[in-house]
Amino acid sequence: MTPLATTSATEVLRRCAELDRHSASPTHLERTYLTPEHAAANRATEGWMRQAGLRTWVDAAGNQYGRREGPEPGMPALLLGSHLDTVPDAGSYDGMLGVLMAIAVAERLRATELPFALEVVGFSDEEGARFGKALLGSQAAAGTWDQAWWHLRDRDGVTLREAFVGFGLDPLRVHEAARRPGELVGYVEAHIEQGPLLEAADRSLGYVTAIAGARRFHLTVHGEARHAGGTPYERRKDALVGASEAIVVIERLARASTCIATVGRIEVQPGAVNVIPGRADLSLDLRAATDAERDAMWQRMEAEITALCEARGLRLSTEETHRAFAAPCAPWLQDAVGVGIAAADASYPAGAAPMGLWSRAGHDAMAIAAVTEIGMLFVRCFDGISHHPGEDVREIDVARGLDALERAVLEVARVVRERS
Amino acid sequence: MTPLATTSATEVLRRCAELDRHSASPTHLERTYLTPEHAAANRATEGWMRQAGLRTWVDAAGNQYGRREGPEPGMPALLLGSHLDTVPDAGSYDGMLGVLMAIAVAERLRATELPFALEVVGFSDEEGARFGKALLGSQAAAGTWDQAWWHLRDRDGVTLREAFVGFGLDPLRVHEAARRPGELVGYVEAHIEQGPLLEAADRSLGYVTAIAGARRFHLTVHGEARHAGGTPYERRKDALVGASEAIVVIERLARASTCIATVGRIEVQPGAVNVIPGRADLSLDLRAATDAERDAMWQRMEAEITALCEARGLRLSTEETHRAFAAPCAPWLQDAVGVGIAAADASYPAGAAPMGLWSRAGHDAMAIAAVTEIGMLFVRCFDGISHHPGEDVREIDVARGLDALERAVLEVARVVRERS
Repeated sequence: MTPLATTSATEVLRRCAELDRHSASPTHLERTYLTPEHAAANRATEGWMRQAGLRTWVDAAGNQYGRREGPEPGMPALLLGSHLDTVPDAGSYDGMLGVLMAIAVAERLRATELPFALEVVGFSDEEGARFGKALLGSQAAAGTWDQAWWHLRDRDGVTLREAFVGFGLDPLRVHEAARRPGELVGYVEAHIEQGPLLEAADRSLGYVTAIAGARRFHLTVHGEARHAGGTPYERRKDALVGASEAIVVIERLARASTCIATVGRIEVQPGAVNVIPGRADLSLDLRAATDAERDAMWQRMEAEITALCEARGLRLSTEETHRAFAAPCAPWLQDAVGVGIAAADASYPAGAAPMGLWSRAGHDAMAIAAVTEIGMLFVRCFDGISHHPGEDVREIDVARGLDALERAVLEVARVVRERS
Repeated sequence: MTPLATTSATEVLRRCAELDRHSASPTHLERTYLTPEHAAANRATEGWMRQAGLRTWVDAAGNQYGRREGPEPGMPALLLGSHLDTVPDAGSYDGMLGVLMAIAVAERLRATELPFALEVVGFSDEEGARFGKALLGSQAAAGTWDQAWWHLRDRDGVTLREAFVGFGLDPLRVHEAARRPGELVGYVEAHIEQGPLLEAADRSLGYVTAIAGARRFHLTVHGEARHAGGTPYERRKDALVGASEAIVVIERLARASTCIATVGRIEVQPGAVNVIPGRADLSLDLRAATDAERDAMWQRMEAEITALCEARGLRLSTEETHRAFAAPCAPWLQDAVGVGIAAADASYPAGAAPMGLWSRAGHDAMAIAAVTEIGMLFVRCFDGISHHPGEDVREIDVARGLDALERAVLEVARVVRERS
């Protein structure tokens, strides 16, 4: 066995910067699924995994794995990791930080006996930036791959199937990437918060209680396009005024609740300066910690918007375009991460309970929840900025995060030993 | 002198339908400035003018004129008319009805001595559909032609100058189309209301008190584009929610006033389902009977929108993109048209005052107001529909309109005689 060389927070951040080199562009970071830069990032990650004493492989969906066995070969594994792909013009930490922290923790624990195997994964596609479908890598690992996806195309018209072949993967073998529940003890993912709550609370770390499942809707307000001059108010059926009232109502209801709702797109027709809009189309993205809260909020929004449209002689039609189930983190893994934070995060006053928060953004853990229990550790980031080159983390928070994640793994080990 | 042959309302409506043949399309009506169909409509109109005993010519801007002299040659003329061009997919009456009613009235008065010359004009461009600039024909007649317009292009890239030459006109002589104040007694235009007020009041005819001058603005709400999931409400600067509040305020303020305001366009950036809009751009079209009412309303709107943006951490910027002065109708011409309505419109109870209303839409009369006093007669139309093939008028209303317009001309003659 080689002597221990613990990877520091400094080194983790240096590796994040090193991964930035593997980009589709020389001027900004963009690393999408099944591209040459994906392969290069896998290779760099594989090198660090090997330095940590892990046996490595790329699975049938392009996910990069490393593993050390437990006391006996082939035991179930505790899986740590996150993703290596990025959005266009990305920051350096969303995904990559979690993978590199997991490798560093595996290295720290190299000489420590655990009652399970330890695996680290760098998922190949979480953002969905290339094929418009998120979580492809982690869904392959979860065994929830959908054959319909083979026909998805990137902006150059390349199908997912063609990209698989181009990457050296066999589309017919994607099922081999699927993990079985018996193979896994659980999945723990470290990730930047991508929100400002830890920063506002002046805490380095928090544990995740659940990952929101978004529902998305396409709302259409149908009115009547008429001459802006000749039509007095009592004769107007202005689709845009109705849509505007709807947007204000959506914010009012969500703000007063535990949900978060966003209208990101709006288009009106005919869209002429001197014509009353006859139709407005808008998107709604709705998230909450639980499906029940989210679904109740949607029912209330739909009822209020229908009523305000009717009061104006407008008609509302709605179409659901996306629905993901919220993924609760397993209480025992929330506890394990909390134990890690309590031990490692000096930003908490002595004896203060670790902060739990629900993730408004989606994560690989949502997909993996289909095959094993999940837990997540959030690391404070600067000003909540993410999906942007301005994404930033403090080294002290990464150092505390490494300690906490290491301690969390030991806590998982303790519970597993206790159970058996 | 040929025997009198009074053109009936039936014949006026038949002629409107006949003009529909002169269209850029076999399936819908579209007749824009300086096109072959413009020339064809001029020729048809010229024929009817001649039948009415008028001497005809096309002026230096493509406007079709007919004239009968007064007691002495070269006397100032009372000008009647409207326009012969249309929007794309137009109805048959907006503009054309006023020209054909004027010709019919000239024919009816053929044997009647008037203390002025009588002219009828079919203006060549009111809608501005081809070059994006309205009232080109009537502005040439008003002497307010702008040399900058020569560079305007249609959707095929043809400049206004090239189109002039192609039509057989000389761009260097457009000034010859300008009428001098001393040449004109006044201008009276009949037009469909393009609004539902006469229909709602159950009246065939009304006189116009003023033509609204629209101001148009481009409003931009500047916020901050951020992740729809990760950004809690207290950290949001959602440009679309701000813009939506602005649209609701615009309607509330205008509805409670004598103004009419329309937001016909809105665009947001980046316009992604899961990103909070960082910027919203909207148009505002604002009209009132007087510039003072309109301008006071804009000041109030701008103040309220600025305040609501500030309350949300948003910034408002505004740019005025268009301003037309409101054109009041001359009181004596309002009276003359009113006398005509009182004599001719049996839809009014005995002794009821004719209905005066301000025109929310623009008209050639606005341009002509720069060179002579104006008056307008509005004819009820179906359901306020205009700029649409569904545009419709009742024959009884046209018949009453012909009688009223004839009577108005006689009233103008009475006043002119009284003055001299």
